[in-house]
Amino acid sequence: MTVNERIAMLRQYMAEKNIDVYVISSADFHQSEYVGAYFRARAYMTGFNGSAGTAVITKDAAGLWTDGRYFIQAEKELSGSEVKLFKMEQPGVPTVEEYLDSVLPKNGTLGFDGRSISVQQGNNYAKLFAYKNVKIAYEYDLVDLVWTDRPALSEHPVFFLEEKYTGESTSSKLSRVREIMKQVGATAHVLITLDDIAWMLNIRGRDVRFTPVVLSYAIVMMNCVHLFINEKKLSDEIKSILAKDNVILHPYNDIYDFVKQFDSNEVVLYDPARLNYALCSNIPTNVKVVENQNPCILMKAIKNDVEIANIKNAHIKDGVAHSKFLYWLKNTVDKEVITEIDASDKLEELRAEQEGFLWPSFGSISAAGPHAAMPHYGATPESNSVIEPGNFYLSDTGGNYWEGSTDITRTYAVGEVSDELKRDYTLVLKGNLALSASRFLYGCTGQNLDVLARQFLWQEGKDYNHGTGHGVGYLLSIHENAARFNWKKLEESMRPLEAGMVISNEPGLYIEDSHGIRIENEVLVCKGEKTNFGQFMYLEPITYAPIDLDAIDPTLLRDDEKLLLNEYHQKVYDLVSPHLTEEEKIFLQKYTRAI
Amino acid sequence: MTVNERIAMLRQYMAEKNIDVYVISSADFHQSEYVGAYFRARAYMTGFNGSAGTAVITKDAAGLWTDGRYFIQAEKELSGSEVKLFKMEQPGVPTVEEYLDSVLPKNGTLGFDGRSISVQQGNNYAKLFAYKNVKIAYEYDLVDLVWTDRPALSEHPVFFLEEKYTGESTSSKLSRVREIMKQVGATAHVLITLDDIAWMLNIRGRDVRFTPVVLSYAIVMMNCVHLFINEKKLSDEIKSILAKDNVILHPYNDIYDFVKQFDSNEVVLYDPARLNYALCSNIPTNVKVVENQNPCILMKAIKNDVEIANIKNAHIKDGVAHSKFLYWLKNTVDKEVITEIDASDKLEELRAEQEGFLWPSFGSISAAGPHAAMPHYGATPESNSVIEPGNFYLSDTGGNYWEGSTDITRTYAVGEVSDELKRDYTLVLKGNLALSASRFLYGCTGQNLDVLARQFLWQEGKDYNHGTGHGVGYLLSIHENAARFNWKKLEESMRPLEAGMVISNEPGLYIEDSHGIRIENEVLVCKGEKTNFGQFMYLEPITYAPIDLDAIDPTLLRDDEKLLLNEYHQKVYDLVSPHLTEEEKIFLQKYTRAI
Repeated sequence: MTVNERIAMLRQYMAEKNIDVYVISSADFHQSEYVGAYFRARAYMTGFNGSAGTAVITKDAAGLWTDGRYFIQAEKELSGSEVKLFKMEQPGVPTVEEYLDSVLPKNGTLGFDGRSISVQQGNNYAKLFAYKNVKIAYEYDLVDLVWTDRPALSEHPVFFLEEKYTGESTSSKLSRVREIMKQVGATAHVLITLDDIAWMLNIRGRDVRFTPVVLSYAIVMMNCVHLFINEKKLSDEIKSILAKDNVILHPYNDIYDFVKQFDSNEVVLYDPARLNYALCSNIPTNVKVVENQNPCILMKAIKNDVEIANIKNAHIKDGVAHSKFLYWLKNTVDKEVITEIDASDKLEELRAEQEGFLWPSFGSISAAGPHAAMPHYGATPESNSVIEPGNFYLSDTGGNYWEGSTDITRTYAVGEVSDELKRDYTLVLKGNLALSASRFLYGCTGQNLDVLARQFLWQEGKDYNHGTGHGVGYLLSIHENAARFNWKKLEESMRPLEAGMVISNEPGLYIEDSHGIRIENEVLVCKGEKTNFGQFMYLEPITYAPIDLDAIDPTLLRDDEKLLLNEYHQKVYDLVSPHLTEEEKIFLQKYTRAI
Repeated sequence: MTVNERIAMLRQYMAEKNIDVYVISSADFHQSEYVGAYFRARAYMTGFNGSAGTAVITKDAAGLWTDGRYFIQAEKELSGSEVKLFKMEQPGVPTVEEYLDSVLPKNGTLGFDGRSISVQQGNNYAKLFAYKNVKIAYEYDLVDLVWTDRPALSEHPVFFLEEKYTGESTSSKLSRVREIMKQVGATAHVLITLDDIAWMLNIRGRDVRFTPVVLSYAIVMMNCVHLFINEKKLSDEIKSILAKDNVILHPYNDIYDFVKQFDSNEVVLYDPARLNYALCSNIPTNVKVVENQNPCILMKAIKNDVEIANIKNAHIKDGVAHSKFLYWLKNTVDKEVITEIDASDKLEELRAEQEGFLWPSFGSISAAGPHAAMPHYGATPESNSVIEPGNFYLSDTGGNYWEGSTDITRTYAVGEVSDELKRDYTLVLKGNLALSASRFLYGCTGQNLDVLARQFLWQEGKDYNHGTGHGVGYLLSIHENAARFNWKKLEESMRPLEAGMVISNEPGLYIEDSHGIRIENEVLVCKGEKTNFGQFMYLEPITYAPIDLDAIDPTLLRDDEKLLLNEYHQKVYDLVSPHLTEEEKIFLQKYTRAI
């Protein structure tokens, strides 16, 4: 079927249900950052494959809204179909809401699959068009009727994470969640976010590419947990483990009917930013609700001692892979042709050799020369470049280990690079060192500290257009945003940094068509001394991989900065060298030498 | 009359009006930071003279709430009366609200002078006690009936600030205010904050100690301004100036009846954080209101070119006074006894010699040795200490000039001071230099940059328990808080820094019973270069007074910091030395030498 044929069929179903306008989002039912193949309904209906976009289908028009990252791709992929591209935030281009307002008739009906729309978004639609008495039909997944060869929902088996990895039993986590439920007067807590459910129940899966989560919904009651999941995914062993904590199993989609049956005595806690519109709408109006952030978000962000020890081990493994990689790169690049994909394959291979490695924690960014100026570049067979001397090679990769998820970026000088490139590299490095070395009063946020990482670039009128850091999950989401380093006002950048949080420290610099730099270490937030002036906190870098000394201009580093770099490199050598060959050790010694 | 007799009489009036509990605040009718003698009702009724406190009088009890700064003073001043001290934020001590709840009977009446209570506070009371049907009586100033020898309201004459000082005519300011009124759909704008009114109408007065404001209320209409003011304060000349902008005069207190007559077609803009409860309550409920920040707040914070040039001149004068003061201090302190009051008198005398000086912009802080460890210490005849060698002397003072208000703190080494003291001083200086030298993207706030001033102290587990900086008015409030440097979440610290704002940069360090340090320069927010990465901004220090080199440990300064200090001192010398005697010049040259 062509896209136009799909749309024509969708319009028939819209007519059957008396729906005037139908919206198709890019989301799954769980507000996930990455979604499985089953959930790519918007891509199926429009032909546009980018990760972000919203489609609107009316009786006689079809539109696709996406942002600047995707204009070129969308134009290409939409050509030949009736779908019109709406370039978001361009002058004169209406927003989705403005467009809906212009096409929705009085007393009309707006339809969407309410499972793929957030509560805020759904409420916003309902409120915006109330003035012309527009009805909301959120119950129909019309794309499902058109998409006859839709991929099945993932049935990947669930595995259990033992206490030697998690440091805390499911029952302990549940009792902490229930403690908070009591504090806010709730008797039931509805959870749809996959990483929160996985963390709380100490289960993992592979239903989403990279992120080891399990497609499921959960409702925590005071004496049991209702888990909505395809039972095929659960071995008898897992079932018996879950049963110990009184986890009651239900079919995946049954939660929508289940919440309709809530007794009017229940008080339901949910996070309005992390619930879908259908689920929220199905809770009977006579049931009292408490809207609050999911208690699991802060709990899972604060790693316990067992997790911290494990995470450090995972980072040593990452450091070993990176040291071997650097050895290979520096010794091979002038002898053989190495492409971006060759290099990321090599690094993945070296990581895969590490004990306890499962799979990558996100899609590798492997970018040579000017490609590195695109912060989110992903090499494809078409774009795949050779790593050439005289520029940088940027590698942003991560691993999922039993002992946690990692995220590390290194930028390497290939051959000799110019003084200008070294200067840029050193400015980025100075920011990374300054943030890592910061000490601060308890209560400080990522918004307070971000300037430390940017100050040297800002002095020269330069900047990087992304946050300085994001939280990292434990064998979970690589972007676990309970806290961030970002000077802008965001919920997460305004949260006090708590001991046990693991956050990335990744300043960069991107010069279009020329070069790109990013240096990323993860840092652990630690409790420092308590003085007369208050409780002090500090950051400990827990990524252990050499920062390429060939790329640095040492004359731009102050003595205290050299000391920080040298201390860091000494630690890298001490932790990593025992796992290397003699030859690699000598190499690493050189690349972690004091400067 | 004793305090107890005053309270007894108040209770008679309470009984007459059927008021069960009466609250007396410390505020004037304008939410001012400093209040005139007329408004010290709480002090009159309780005997407690501190600047912050709330009194609650019931039929058989009287309480006074104040904060930690005043516990000792309040205990002393309340002794002998029936007023019981409630130490705020101490364990087991109820808040005012909790106490009110415990003493207010069902269907009872809570009374207060609604002119001295903010909208938020009044609404909060009404909401908190609605459950027991408590009525609010806000119309009665019962203290006025008791206080027969109450000081009169100030009748100080108003003076006009010409355009050579303000850089903008009243009519231009009014049209900018009206532009914003149009944007929010308002037809009337009610203003009670004295600095906003003074700025908007280019008038000044002396109704509050230090702050050159005029007791008045204003309502801006689209074609006129209603000004509520004691007409005796206005000369014929001022009246005719005001008449040109169609300013219509009314008696001071008439605004309360005036707003009752608002036509139901009016749309009234007011700032709920800057309005009193009585005025708000008197606006008829059928009049539409728009709650927004006063437009004048941001407008007056952004100084225009004329104001900036004037302010810099005022700071040169301040710099001359400070250079002469330093010359005197360093040459006299080992020969004569100098007390804290002697020193602040001397500095005021030197400032008063400057052309265009009017009066001090706030009460001097003149603190020797351990006294300087109290950030808000004010020397009294009882506390007045001799400035002794071996410690610091801290001076935090300011002037109101025709050309603007200044606020400057210098900390001087008296004789030789220990290495420990020099170390502390140098850490504070490093923070001051780092903040002043910062460059940042437009959009940054004081919350983002504050860490630059604290970083060196925080590295050593030290801190100062106050913000790093506040806005400064133009011949107006010395704390003009449209923007602040403060790492904590405050409305003002979260506002983007705009070119033309003048903010203090005043890190400090206070070691109890030992010493105190604060180094305060005002800085001007400036627009820097626009690069591919965005619009950059920077700060320009506009205070021109030597920072005592005798107090610095140069070994703790990096080369780039020395350069910043040397450049600053060179500028001080260049601007100030033309106004000094030859001997003073030689002295200043030494005290501004490159290190």
